[in-house]
Amino acid sequence: MPLIAVDVVRGRSPEELRTLLDAVHEAMVAAFEVPDTDRYQVLTQHDPGELVLLDTGLGFERTDRVVMIRVTSRQRTEPAKQDFYRRLAEVLEERCGVASSDLMVSIVENGPADWSFGGGTAQFLTGDLP
Amino acid sequence: MPLIAVDVVRGRSPEELRTLLDAVHEAMVAAFEVPDTDRYQVLTQHDPGELVLLDTGLGFERTDRVVMIRVTSRQRTEPAKQDFYRRLAEVLEERCGVASSDLMVSIVENGPADWSFGGGTAQFLTGDLP
Amino acid sequence: MPLIAVDVVRGRSPEELRTLLDAVHEAMVAAFEVPDTDRYQVLTQHDPGELVLLDTGLGFERTDRVVMIRVTSRQRTEPAKQDFYRRLAEVLEERCGVASSDLMVSIVENGPADWSFGGGTAQFLTGDLP
Repeated sequence: MPLIAVDVVRGRSPEELRTLLDAVHEAMVAAFEVPDTDRYQVLTQHDPGELVLLDTGLGFERTDRVVMIRVTSRQRTEPAKQDFYRRLAEVLEERCGVASSDLMVSIVENGPADWSFGGGTAQFLTGDLP
Repeated sequence: MPLIAVDVVRGRSPEELRTLLDAVHEAMVAAFEVPDTDRYQVLTQHDPGELVLLDTGLGFERTDRVVMIRVTSRQRTEPAKQDFYRRLAEVLEERCGVASSDLMVSIVENGPADWSFGGGTAQFLTGDLP
Repeated sequence: MPLIAVDVVRGRSPEELRTLLDAVHEAMVAAFEVPDTDRYQVLTQHDPGELVLLDTGLGFERTDRVVMIRVTSRQRTEPAKQDFYRRLAEVLEERCGVASSDLMVSIVENGPADWSFGGGTAQFLTGDLP
């Protein structure tokens, strides 16, 4: 159920984008312990000037390969979130050649009534999803 | 005041997109009981591979007509949210030929200080809006 | 740390867009009292029909220069938010020729565990950021 919006700068091939989304999904499934079919991703590609992602003085040098990830999810524990960040950085580096300095993540939480996956019903309220 | 972001796959005509946004608005106005001028919509069109919306095993088959709806709103009751999901599914099927299996919704809530509709003021705090 | 998504209608030059993002950042830094390197912006340009921003009867006439600003941030006080709205309206009018009737803002809040600025860690939890 987490919904993940991914923003990147234009320039990757369709295959690279698919691998990127696969990698993000893999990290999410492992960290949040959800089924593999729990995949909801919205990718938006931008012109270079449309993404301005500095570093609050932390020393990260961003490149055109920077990946901005915005997650909407029901509540997750702090350890699960930290695990997600760590796994994301690992898998994006290994499989997509994205340095961890080029990865930024922001999470917003909502509740069980805030999701309808289809059919016009709220599956967390009807009991169709646990 | 709900702000509604709509993500779809490219391929609909401008008229179809307008009808889609009209239908989403109609369902929202009815379910949340807001004025007809309470309309704030941001549509983004995507290439096919940019939207990956599976079904958590619920049995929904998605097509290229899939509609992802992200709502930001002040607090709404569970019944109002459920009514919104139901109405959305109905009106999108009737007016836009979108099957309810192709409709996904996620809501995030905020508070009265979190909105400025223009003029640089917070209308829910100034009393310009109730 | 606030992450700011900016949605506008296509038609501005790259220079105008840069000035717009600079102005938004300036208002944010002043109102939320964050470092100048605390800049995280995602701009999306839309076709005219993709942004439908009415006014809930408040009397704002929108034009194609309308600017929709969505902020994700850790908690901010009501006065800081109001200051942000006021400063935004001022600076967008002065530096970008955007009337305050063409400015809409929505804020969503999250917590310290909800941010990773790079390196796969949660800087507000590790103490790398205060």
